[in-house]
Amino acid sequence: MALIVQKFGGTSVGSIERIEQVADKVKKFRDAGDDLVIVLSAMSGETNRLIDLAKQISDQPVTRELDVIISTGEQVTIALLAMALIKRGVPAVSYTGAQVRILTDSAHSKARILQIDDQKIRNDLKEGRVVVVAGFQGVDEHGNITTLGRGGSDTTGVALAAALKADECQIYTDVDGVYTTDPRVVSQAQRLDKITFEEMLEMASLGSKVLQIRAVEFAGKYNVPLRVLHSFKEGPGTLITIDEEETMEQPIISGIAFNRDEAKLTIRGVPDTPGVAFKILGPISGANIEVDMIVQNVAHDNTTDFTFTVHRNDYQAALQVLENTAVELAARKVVGDTKIAKVSIVGVGMRSHAGVASRMFEALAKDNINIQMISTSEIKVSVVIEEKYLELAVRALHTAFELDAPRQGE
Amino acid sequence: MALIVQKFGGTSVGSIERIEQVADKVKKFRDAGDDLVIVLSAMSGETNRLIDLAKQISDQPVTRELDVIISTGEQVTIALLAMALIKRGVPAVSYTGAQVRILTDSAHSKARILQIDDQKIRNDLKEGRVVVVAGFQGVDEHGNITTLGRGGSDTTGVALAAALKADECQIYTDVDGVYTTDPRVVSQAQRLDKITFEEMLEMASLGSKVLQIRAVEFAGKYNVPLRVLHSFKEGPGTLITIDEEETMEQPIISGIAFNRDEAKLTIRGVPDTPGVAFKILGPISGANIEVDMIVQNVAHDNTTDFTFTVHRNDYQAALQVLENTAVELAARKVVGDTKIAKVSIVGVGMRSHAGVASRMFEALAKDNINIQMISTSEIKVSVVIEEKYLELAVRALHTAFELDAPRQGE
Repeated sequence: MALIVQKFGGTSVGSIERIEQVADKVKKFRDAGDDLVIVLSAMSGETNRLIDLAKQISDQPVTRELDVIISTGEQVTIALLAMALIKRGVPAVSYTGAQVRILTDSAHSKARILQIDDQKIRNDLKEGRVVVVAGFQGVDEHGNITTLGRGGSDTTGVALAAALKADECQIYTDVDGVYTTDPRVVSQAQRLDKITFEEMLEMASLGSKVLQIRAVEFAGKYNVPLRVLHSFKEGPGTLITIDEEETMEQPIISGIAFNRDEAKLTIRGVPDTPGVAFKILGPISGANIEVDMIVQNVAHDNTTDFTFTVHRNDYQAALQVLENTAVELAARKVVGDTKIAKVSIVGVGMRSHAGVASRMFEALAKDNINIQMISTSEIKVSVVIEEKYLELAVRALHTAFELDAPRQGE
Repeated sequence: MALIVQKFGGTSVGSIERIEQVADKVKKFRDAGDDLVIVLSAMSGETNRLIDLAKQISDQPVTRELDVIISTGEQVTIALLAMALIKRGVPAVSYTGAQVRILTDSAHSKARILQIDDQKIRNDLKEGRVVVVAGFQGVDEHGNITTLGRGGSDTTGVALAAALKADECQIYTDVDGVYTTDPRVVSQAQRLDKITFEEMLEMASLGSKVLQIRAVEFAGKYNVPLRVLHSFKEGPGTLITIDEEETMEQPIISGIAFNRDEAKLTIRGVPDTPGVAFKILGPISGANIEVDMIVQNVAHDNTTDFTFTVHRNDYQAALQVLENTAVELAARKVVGDTKIAKVSIVGVGMRSHAGVASRMFEALAKDNINIQMISTSEIKVSVVIEEKYLELAVRALHTAFELDAPRQGE
């Protein structure tokens, strides 16, 4: 008999019919003898409806009050699911974040979980009840309702699993697992049975939207086995877990991530003096713009070129900041490009295999894809290329690293 | 500087525009220097929408879970009003019933308030904030969300006013006060400046729907001055207060109440033996039917006639029960009538004035209105008449007791 935390997102509880389907699913696990804690999001669209209501009052609604409003979304779904379970003869009880007592800090709309009181839930489990908990929300030490920010329900699920020392935290979603890359781009993409937390973190931060980064970090930190599954299809999904020795036989590369959300900015002919990086990036972060990749070329004639990427939404703002900086630093000029894409190969296997990066570059060269920027970490190599080559690059790499599924009939 | 509790109902907060209007009104009081606690209902229609959602899952939803869902209605309006106040530069904070800690018993969907923790609210008032509280809801000793049942927001307002020893509890609604009778029936009806708790209770229980009976009882018990006002029109409204000596000069009769919700049942030729009333009414209350007026005529030939009224919705069920009883008691026969109306005169003044009832009967006789049943209490005389005479009777009594407003030009 296992203790499982199951999290269902907004689409999975988006209608009464879907909630009934979730109840059927939960009952099946229950009948198999598992202890269950269910974490739910609001019905899809509901959080936006509530935010819209608030925005009709104020463009910048007070976050304390906004949290009071949007936390009602999950409060409705948890009670509906509890009702649906009880109707099926499954004893169940719902709790809001405040009722469980999911204690958070007071950073409304982006609160962090500090502590979870597991007493109530443990008592209910002991008495045979399925416990249905509102995701995405908590309460601060003063009793104010807080929310964790978008996608926070994944984090609630993982945090509960950690607090309860659950055997597994299952995240039900609209895909049946984590893939070697986006199947819409590469039809040969394969579902991974297993992936490590580190790989999943890189995949998530590189644009694979299956799981929230915070939830993966949390799961890694507390070593909560995390499984991604499809809400309404059967299947084993993908288990995200620690890098045990048995995983040594896995392929060098687990997956290929990509995104088109970034833009590139270059400041040319900057005097190559100490502190110049700070002089360039200080004003950027001062304008609340997050920088992703950073490349500084070797100095040449005592000047250097400095390139970085930002989210495409921040491109115009960053360009303006950078042009001011260029004047101050007497740089030669500023150029920018929004038509770029980032492609990354991710895998813990590359730690013990040399030549992974060069194999990547070779595959791209073969298809005449020019690499504009390169950045590496221990388990990832990312390149920036011209956006129009994105699909071509992803397919080439997927094949080069032997991730393609066997073709039917082969 | 007064401390005022103001309660706004669902229609008054039925749209963003209305909530903004309420915020304007609250700001006006605030600018005049009053300390304010605002109690809100859910936006009109919202509670029904939420109940409908629950009913899609289950015809008989578990009341604990139903309370979790429907309490979200007020949770949304309190935060919206707090936002609207803050936008106007008025410091404000919202609290759910659980956050205030409005402690109730555990009778979900019809909970009773046991205790209110006034600490948080007092602190906020001290720091200059307007406190916006969700009506209709509370929390039991185990932390479960409870609701007080329909109209419970009035009760929340009065209970808060009692706990805070507020100077006044103002109930904002869609009428500008309590009238001598329904202005739709008697155009000469007048708004009362004052009415006693007892009179208001009789008026409310007799069909005047301005205030919830529970709220009036509560206000009377804790002597909370209660004022009924129009949400969006200026005016002094009607003050409901204790019967002080100064009110001795008020008219004998304060108002005329009526309703058409009842039906009459008579069992004829019942053997006149001890315990017969219980034998008749026991099975009725056993069938969960509430009885209003009861009249037993003087025995005649050792048999008696026994008549009572029930809500019209319960008429068929009551008739069936009574017919079984008639067989058991060997009564002569059972007759019923749904085309009746009840008209009542209400006033504390009748305590010290003889002949009030006969003056009522005289007025009705003058218009040839036959009286079918009579029942009296210390401050009320009720008669049952044929339904078609209702308007005529109310107008006749309104004039006979000198309640008519002076005609224009007089």
